[in-house]
Amino acid sequence: MPAYHDLNVQERILLGPGPSMASPRVIRAMATPPIGHLDPGLLAIYEEEQALLRHLFQTENPWTFALSGTGTSGMQAALANLLEPGDAILVAVHGYFGQRLAEMARRLGAEVETIERPLGEIFTVEAIEAALSRRRYKVFAIVHAETSTGAEQLHLGEIAAAAHRHGALVVLDTVTSLGSIPVRVDAWGVDIAYSASQKSLGAPAGLAPITVSPRAQEAIQKRRTSVSSFYLDLNLYARYWHDHAYHHTASASLHYALREALREVWEEGLEARFARHRRHAETLWAGLEELGAPPFIPLDYRLPPLTTARVPAGVQPHALRARLLEEYNIEIAAGFGALKDKVWRIGLMGYSSRAENVTLLLAALRDLLP
Amino acid sequence: MPAYHDLNVQERILLGPGPSMASPRVIRAMATPPIGHLDPGLLAIYEEEQALLRHLFQTENPWTFALSGTGTSGMQAALANLLEPGDAILVAVHGYFGQRLAEMARRLGAEVETIERPLGEIFTVEAIEAALSRRRYKVFAIVHAETSTGAEQLHLGEIAAAAHRHGALVVLDTVTSLGSIPVRVDAWGVDIAYSASQKSLGAPAGLAPITVSPRAQEAIQKRRTSVSSFYLDLNLYARYWHDHAYHHTASASLHYALREALREVWEEGLEARFARHRRHAETLWAGLEELGAPPFIPLDYRLPPLTTARVPAGVQPHALRARLLEEYNIEIAAGFGALKDKVWRIGLMGYSSRAENVTLLLAALRDLLP
Repeated sequence: MPAYHDLNVQERILLGPGPSMASPRVIRAMATPPIGHLDPGLLAIYEEEQALLRHLFQTENPWTFALSGTGTSGMQAALANLLEPGDAILVAVHGYFGQRLAEMARRLGAEVETIERPLGEIFTVEAIEAALSRRRYKVFAIVHAETSTGAEQLHLGEIAAAAHRHGALVVLDTVTSLGSIPVRVDAWGVDIAYSASQKSLGAPAGLAPITVSPRAQEAIQKRRTSVSSFYLDLNLYARYWHDHAYHHTASASLHYALREALREVWEEGLEARFARHRRHAETLWAGLEELGAPPFIPLDYRLPPLTTARVPAGVQPHALRARLLEEYNIEIAAGFGALKDKVWRIGLMGYSSRAENVTLLLAALRDLLP
Repeated sequence: MPAYHDLNVQERILLGPGPSMASPRVIRAMATPPIGHLDPGLLAIYEEEQALLRHLFQTENPWTFALSGTGTSGMQAALANLLEPGDAILVAVHGYFGQRLAEMARRLGAEVETIERPLGEIFTVEAIEAALSRRRYKVFAIVHAETSTGAEQLHLGEIAAAAHRHGALVVLDTVTSLGSIPVRVDAWGVDIAYSASQKSLGAPAGLAPITVSPRAQEAIQKRRTSVSSFYLDLNLYARYWHDHAYHHTASASLHYALREALREVWEEGLEARFARHRRHAETLWAGLEELGAPPFIPLDYRLPPLTTARVPAGVQPHALRARLLEEYNIEIAAGFGALKDKVWRIGLMGYSSRAENVTLLLAALRDLLP
């Protein structure tokens, strides 16, 4: 008969692509005893979360919720609600998460076309406009902050305008960007943006913020077929969040934590928060240059929340990463796909984006690099 | 500019259909700082959770996980992984959650047939066997503990054997039953059973335990089409849990809590736990009889974790329920559907199933009833 001991988890300094660390306030909020999914206390929290999420997404969209799933459930919900079998979608792929968007859309029975950029590059407006001219697409999807490469897709306002000129709805993945760099849903004209609680927002994983434009809402409500996923049907979410009709048993614990993380965003202020993420990233970038592990992405579209650092010649990237974890309790991540042995991925998101974490990581790398 | 105050949630005594209360140990475990979704510390927790879930489901199934979603995501995953468009499914409906199974299957493009029992009744083996004879069904689905009525479907071993004789895989909803009454997955021959973390297990909401027989696993791996939901594809879950291949960012916080709740189940012992749920339920039932609000379901298939109590003549059920919440901080639930004004639903699940809660509820009802 096995023995199950007291939980004894080694604490980590989380400087990977997510989860990031949760602040003491967020952890304390989560430790509040759970209440019911229709308790007036939880419904009041939803009201606050909606206002705080609209502030963060920079939108007036009535349909602004947090889904009961991880960031991947946000991607799944965006595509599953907009696409019906046979609908055409164009996915702009500049890294792994673009590929995932395309795979999800294929599984949903859509006609999927892609345009691609090599890992570490981003799209011009012209390239996307040319692809949009090929045929009529119902949806155009793109990733804002590619967690697999560390690149920020720029020109999103012009890209969304081009998509609308060609009749497509715009889906934007803001899983890594929301909370660390500006996401201007209304100004850019994004139709659905989704994110995750555990990256630049600094809450534990398990909720996926999502916002839906009135245009996308209308498209969803005009579908010929029901959304194939009952669990992620946004109509049912809207009825739960706005009309308090039972749909699923949301986790009060995770909402306590998300509300507190969003409150911290509100108190800090968006501009100050973005500046903090940029300031600590710049310190990291300068230190990596000095160590001979310079950032992989050019400065003009390099992401503050997620840096890919080139592995210096002669260094075993995975062995060094293992030593960082074992000897310093610092988590960073390997590169993704073709970049697996070429870069490390270093996250400075949410509560992880602090001077002491940058200083420690650079000092540890200095110790470990030959 | 609105002000967002410190979280100040009114604590409740949760005696509804779920969530149930979380023990101090479970809440303390959840307040451990999060770690990464591929951290060796979290992977070790998954190993323990699998062993503890196999113990609880009474199964040897290799595919035994906890999905990153609520109980509804477990239902969604069971159907979405087994059913392909055009596949035939028979759903035995004896309450709302049976209806939900049928609706989900319809949305997935299956050919759905149902057999139904009036609310508060259950099926005989003969009735199900007769329905199974109509045609060849790929899947037969039924709810073990109908949270909408308080009825336990009996004879599950014989029912599953009948389904197998007719070539159907058996899906069993154990959302309310797992952790409070026996669920014998292997002995009964169930192919997929799913549950929820926040009912009889006593953890916060947000995870859906699921177990998949080798026969169902083979059926999933032989599909002609990919599972339409990338998020809930059980092949990808198996690769994450067993081979540690990235799929989504699971919530370490929720797994800390679920592991602790499962450890409490292990320490208590299954038989003692089932006896505790039965003992407190019997006290409740006797008290309800005395108060003139007797249980709605006959004793031989009445559920210990969820009691439907008849609203006495002349009592406004929703007004009384509101007073219980406002004056005593006790949550119970209204009836569902046609039973909305006829019964209350009272849950005694997990950590909520304690003598002091039963005594308090009965005393409060005594105060409030005319």
